[in-house]
This record gives sequence, C-alpha cells and structure tokens, in this order.
Amino acid sequence: LYAWVERFLVDLIRRDLSPGDRLATEDQLIEELGVSRITVRRAVSNLVARGLVVSQRGKGTFVAFPRIEQPLTALTGFVEDMARAGRVASARVLVTETVSAPPAAARHLEVAAGSPVVFIERVRLADGLPVSVDQTYLLPDLGAQVAADDLEAEPIFDLLEQKYGIPLVEADYRLESVAAAEPIATALQVAVDTPTLLVERTSYTTGGRPVDFERLHYRGDAIAFVTKLRRATR
Amino acid sequence: LYAWVERFLVDLIRRDLSPGDRLATEDQLIEELGVSRITVRRAVSNLVARGLVVSQRGKGTFVAFPRIEQPLTALTGFVEDMARAGRVASARVLVTETVSAPPAAARHLEVAAGSPVVFIERVRLADGLPVSVDQTYLLPDLGAQVAADDLEAEPIFDLLEQKYGIPLVEADYRLESVAAAEPIATALQVAVDTPTLLVERTSYTTGGRPVDFERLHYRGDAIAFVTKLRRATR
Repeated sequence: LYAWVERFLVDLIRRDLSPGDRLATEDQLIEELGVSRITVRRAVSNLVARGLVVSQRGKGTFVAFPRIEQPLTALTGFVEDMARAGRVASARVLVTETVSAPPAAARHLEVAAGSPVVFIERVRLADGLPVSVDQTYLLPDLGAQVAADDLEAEPIFDLLEQKYGIPLVEADYRLESVAAAEPIATALQVAVDTPTLLVERTSYTTGGRPVDFERLHYRGDAIAFVTKLRRATR
Repeated sequence: LYAWVERFLVDLIRRDLSPGDRLATEDQLIEELGVSRITVRRAVSNLVARGLVVSQRGKGTFVAFPRIEQPLTALTGFVEDMARAGRVASARVLVTETVSAPPAAARHLEVAAGSPVVFIERVRLADGLPVSVDQTYLLPDLGAQVAADDLEAEPIFDLLEQKYGIPLVEADYRLESVAAAEPIATALQVAVDTPTLLVERTSYTTGGRPVDFERLHYRGDAIAFVTKLRRATR
C-alpha cells in the first residue's frame, strides 16, 4: 500500500509541484487517501531517501531542489564548478581577519599552531541561493593581499593564479557528512543539525608548498559529488 | 574566553576521556569553570566542528570516535577498505528478497522500471560497531545465486569475481550528505535525521555491463573519504 502512496506522491510532485513547495501534511494525506499514518510515513520516508523531498522538523516536508552534480575528478574552484553546472555564482564576504592558526589549519599550511594566518569566510551562492560556506586560511603575507581584494567579485583561485602568479598544482580532499552548527547553519539558511557535506581541502603550488587550506561547508541538499573509479589492482 | 574553555576541554578529552564517553553538561561546565552559557556553547560548538565531540540532542555530548579514513581512489569493497584501515569487518544480513526494481536501480542496471531484481540489505560493522547499511540490487539470475550464498561470511565483490567469474572493472560513484530516515537510522544505531554519507555506486564488468547497483549509507561520524586531485587543465 505504501508503494501506491509513494507513486501517487511522485506523480503529484512531478505534475503539480515545484522545488520548495510544501507537501500536504501527514494528517491531510491520511484523510485524503484513506490510509494509515504508518503507510504515509513509510511512503514519505522513501521519498526522502530518494532525494525527492526534504523534511524539516516542525516545518513540514518540501519538494527538493535537484542537487548540483559536481565532478570530483580535478581541483576546481566554486565559480568554475557553478559555470560547468550552468549556474550563476556569487559570493558574500562574512569575515576577513588575522587569527591564530587553529590546529588543523596550522598542520595543513605547515606552520606552528597559533601563528598568525588570514581567515576569510564567504557564503557562496548559486543563482542567488546559498550553497556553501567557505572558510579559507592563507599564510599572512599572501593572505593580507588577498583579503584586500574584491572577494565578492573575484574567486581566490583566480587571484592566486592570475594576479599573484601562484599556480595551483593539486589538492588533498577530505569529505565528511556533518551536522550544521551555528553560525554555518544560519549562513546556509538551514536549521541547526541539518546535514552538510564538509570538504577539507589543502591546495599546493609547485614544489609541494601548501598555499590554501579551506573548509567548504556545502548544504547537503544542494550538492552531490560524482566520480568514476577503476577497480583496485590487488 | 571560549578559546580557553575549548583548550581546557581538548586537554580533558585527550587526557581523561575515551571515545564514547559523555562530556560534562553545559550546566556543569558553567558552574565548574565559572563562565557563561554562551561561552560554553561556542567552545563546544567548535569541538563539534573539529570532529572531537558529537552532540546528540537530548542525550548530551560525547567524545567522538576517530573517523575511518577511506581513500576514494579505486573501486574497493567494504572488507578490503576495513582491512586497509586495520579494522575487522563483519556483516549482518537484514533482507534478501526479489523486488520490483525502483527507478534508480532500474536506470543504473539498465532494465525496465518495475522488472524483478534481487535486493540485499546488510549492516556492515567495523570492530563490531555498525558503520554502514548497504542496499544492493542485482539482476535476477545472478542475484538469486548470490542471495543463496553466505553473505555474513563472504563479501559480494569476492563472490562476483571469484565464485561467479565476473570481473569488476570500474564504478560510478555519487556521494551525498543525507539525514538518516527509518529504518536506516535504527540499523546504524543513530537518531533519525543524523547525518549520513550516502554513496550510490554502480559497478561495471567487461564491456561496460552494469552488474551491481548499491546504496551505501555510512554513519556520518564513522567515515571520511580522502583523495588527491590535480588542477584542472583549462
């Protein structure tokens, strides 16, 4: 029976609803379809698992925006990624300040913990919707120059490569699924504890020198990373 | 001040606590350290962001288990991954049944939606702790053979390659951050809506034929995927 309810809802979503629209409540579905609460819950839970709807506790269930598919095959920046996906990228700068390097930033930038680094926090938007909060750590001299640039107009990768002549060669990536804490949640316009896809990335220039350590907090419902891998030789 | 509280808690965790131990409550920390609630919250929220502790709403804050770092560089199975990480892998079979192919499974296995496929659901454990719920879809003939094998003892990749002579060549991966729905949450021993890292994977044999479509629901606090990427040539 839940499979029938699920198909009914899929048809409804495809035909009559748009991303962001609210689905009928559990009580409404129980009454309109004449089925039990457990049937409605199982059908809706399957739609969540299929990524067609998003449940926000206390607010309701909403038709999901399709995730932006981002290839995880080469080192690319946000503006390049959004251009490939056919989206218009923009940025809002939240913070630029010199801070004592937190342990992870110090380790990845290969400086002593607590030594000064420049911290830049930006909200990255696609077609005007917040997709990611990017926290960037740079070594102090370079960081001071970058922080003085127009970071709402220019991607940091472009500044590094084109303005400051620092070619990016490769990057280490680490991907985790993490519950959004404040103030990331607010910047992403989601509730606290909503899943985010956290990418920690250290970019290296020639000679294996680290130049840029980032924590990219993507909205979980905004992005999917895709790649193709060959079978391990064993 | 919160930075001092944060350092105090990091020292406490490193010296006196073990993974899974509960941290003192907000009220206890406020009283013991003589600081404000907002200071305690900011310090703990930073520890959450650093992955050192995990907050479970209504239950408290617990010292995190270190995430298993899994290279995202080659097609590998769970038992291979855990062996590399120095963990003992095991499996509990929840479901083996023939079902009508859901749309995603049908599309990836290149069969008509609704045609019969074999569905296998297993909890995968590392050192006895649940790490992932693996949902596997196989074409009916092969699937019936695999479902009759001892899936708590033998990885499906080993069965395919060694018993049935089907070499795996490569796979398409898609990674998302998703809130755990029932019954995944229960199988992973986490609360509903806890972040999971969902991997959709289609494995291909020679000739580009799809043989295995999987949805791997990893506990978000159990795993991190790591890789190294070269700069895109532009």
